[in-house]
Amino acid sequence: MLLRNAKIVTITDENRYGLIEAGAIAIKDGLIDWVGSDDAIPVKYLEQASRDLEGRLITPALIDCHTHVVYGGNRAVEFEMRLEGASYEEIARAGGGIVSTVTATRKADVDQLVKTALPRVDALLAEGVSVIEVKSGYGLDRDTELNMLRAARKIATLRPVRVKTTFLGAHATPAEFKGEPDRYIDEVCIPALHAAHEEGLVDAVDGFCEGIAFDTDQIKRVFDVARELGIPVKLHAEQLSNIGGTKLAAEYGAISVDHVEYANEDDARAMTKSGSVAVLLPGAFYTLHETQLPPIAAFRKHGVPMAVATDCNPGTSPLMSILMTMNMTCTLFRLTPEEALCGATKHAATALGLSDTGQIKAGLRADLAIWDIEHPAELSYRIGFNPLFERIFGGETVASKAD
Amino acid sequence: MLLRNAKIVTITDENRYGLIEAGAIAIKDGLIDWVGSDDAIPVKYLEQASRDLEGRLITPALIDCHTHVVYGGNRAVEFEMRLEGASYEEIARAGGGIVSTVTATRKADVDQLVKTALPRVDALLAEGVSVIEVKSGYGLDRDTELNMLRAARKIATLRPVRVKTTFLGAHATPAEFKGEPDRYIDEVCIPALHAAHEEGLVDAVDGFCEGIAFDTDQIKRVFDVARELGIPVKLHAEQLSNIGGTKLAAEYGAISVDHVEYANEDDARAMTKSGSVAVLLPGAFYTLHETQLPPIAAFRKHGVPMAVATDCNPGTSPLMSILMTMNMTCTLFRLTPEEALCGATKHAATALGLSDTGQIKAGLRADLAIWDIEHPAELSYRIGFNPLFERIFGGETVASKAD
Ligand SMILES: [Zn+2]
Ligand SMILES: [Zn+2]
Repeated sequence: MLLRNAKIVTITDENRYGLIEAGAIAIKDGLIDWVGSDDAIPVKYLEQASRDLEGRLITPALIDCHTHVVYGGNRAVEFEMRLEGASYEEIARAGGGIVSTVTATRKADVDQLVKTALPRVDALLAEGVSVIEVKSGYGLDRDTELNMLRAARKIATLRPVRVKTTFLGAHATPAEFKGEPDRYIDEVCIPALHAAHEEGLVDAVDGFCEGIAFDTDQIKRVFDVARELGIPVKLHAEQLSNIGGTKLAAEYGAISVDHVEYANEDDARAMTKSGSVAVLLPGAFYTLHETQLPPIAAFRKHGVPMAVATDCNPGTSPLMSILMTMNMTCTLFRLTPEEALCGATKHAATALGLSDTGQIKAGLRADLAIWDIEHPAELSYRIGFNPLFERIFGGETVASKAD
Repeated sequence: MLLRNAKIVTITDENRYGLIEAGAIAIKDGLIDWVGSDDAIPVKYLEQASRDLEGRLITPALIDCHTHVVYGGNRAVEFEMRLEGASYEEIARAGGGIVSTVTATRKADVDQLVKTALPRVDALLAEGVSVIEVKSGYGLDRDTELNMLRAARKIATLRPVRVKTTFLGAHATPAEFKGEPDRYIDEVCIPALHAAHEEGLVDAVDGFCEGIAFDTDQIKRVFDVARELGIPVKLHAEQLSNIGGTKLAAEYGAISVDHVEYANEDDARAMTKSGSVAVLLPGAFYTLHETQLPPIAAFRKHGVPMAVATDCNPGTSPLMSILMTMNMTCTLFRLTPEEALCGATKHAATALGLSDTGQIKAGLRADLAIWDIEHPAELSYRIGFNPLFERIFGGETVASKAD
């Protein structure tokens, strides 16, 4: 199959648009076989079936590399209570907060978790997303942590999407271990990680390193197990304060360090050494009225790749749009639209340990998004508008406005 | 037609949800004939065709009461230049700013203006919107101002939506009148208003009262003509500073005063007297990194109705989602979800001078939005997610996921 007469935003190895004004892409066996200018198409492709894209713009399919889309319950009423002036205690008494999500998630079985996650997944796919990362972390007991990851795996069998699973047992200490985070880590989190790994459910291991969650010693114990099992790590770090999570993650060669509003230039240097991606999550920044900006200048200076992701979760970022995320990253964090697009493609792939997607070049998967726009900056510029024309997943058209 | 087994958010005269847990709506000749509890349906309706909505939630159809959706060109590249560090002068030299929109709008004919506006309109309709206000103001010459309003009227013939047109000749002084705003008002704006009115193109008259646009004396001259012609007025006021626009608008009995970040309690008192609606536009606040919040507490104290709208425009608010607007109004302005929903229904209707829509009660138009949600707060809580199941316009289903 040959796609012709398109503007192609290849995303180069140097993290630029790499725009081909009038270009073509040859697809073979689900992979990109060739990409280049319309007037330089090798003869062998000209004999194949071809499609005229009428000047539409093609980017790599987008990637959401940090989500919590699998969970039970709904926190809209808590959102409303807070805006109506309810205190933290009143919300907690009404069963709000992460406890309410844990309770609802524990009550749900795998099929229910899948069913409630699918509309959120579908919203992302409708915007050209082809890879979604999904974390556990609302079970906080062995069975429910495993169920969340099973639900995540099942999503990939029901929709044309790749799912990367992340074990986040070290997300919070559940009520039944209140005041005993160490015992929770030893008696629940680490055994659950072993069990999930044995079932093939863990592509990466994550934790929440923060004053209100776990300290670096506790995260270290979880990361030691991950290292032993040969699983890459990533970390929620420096979201609300700087307690050394980024440096710890870098020591363990983390594939990504996420949030990082309170990271500093030293942290950026550590990430350069470890090759970790900084995953920016403006949805939580926006929802929490955070004012501390991530150290974008330091990341640029030290060449730390910046990915962008929804952090889709029921409490601090009920955001289900990767395009809105790109706009927020530009508007709130002052990334350029080119950085935002690299952040939702190439760097997002790296943050998930994937090297077969995120750019348009020969040998990579033919995961493409075709847009009704003229310039790639339009993807970040508009707010609440989806110009997707078609998504191609592994060489196959999976959704198209032409249908 | 009878809609049964639905949660109905009626929006009461007291600006509350007015939730009926298990309710029904009877529709006759495009109007709501009866609304009430499922177990109190009058016998005459039980004989009609009925639909079981399986517990879905119904609200009045949404209303976007402040937009600039008709315009030519695209400002994405300017957005990108700014984030890449270009100065105001560099952007102006590259043809950016409102000048670029005016130039592109003047070049377009009515059909081209309609064609480029339709995807923006369609994005709004897909979220349950049934009334859209559309302003002129990017022509700044007589013919183009009229063409913009003709395009707005034409949209209502091509899509199931009502369009309210607003003449905004006093939006900016065009380059050819640089330094002569008074001459522009007298020689172009006022004659164009007369011509547009004669053609039946003007439902309301608006202006931009600001240091960078027109002062109160200039706006007054335009409002005097509107009064003479019997057309209601509204005003972009107190967006960047307080120069008395709100008080002026109130003196003229404005149906709405829009933006109002820099309005004060005195302005709120004036609006109470005039019965003007405060139209909150968080998209521009967000895009411009504004920090001055509108005087929400004063509006509440003095009973000023607050509407919310996208302000969809290519420069300061490229926002095409009324749901995202509701979320921004809650997150950035701390409105409650109940206030946000009243703001996108009942108060938005009032801001357009409409008394036949914006609530669910007998005698009003059967313009309804049916949602796959359990609680109305979900409409404001989620970010970048559209749970619309079906839209009913004048009693007819115009889009449904059940199709
Ligand atoms: Zn997270
Ligand atoms: Zn406006």
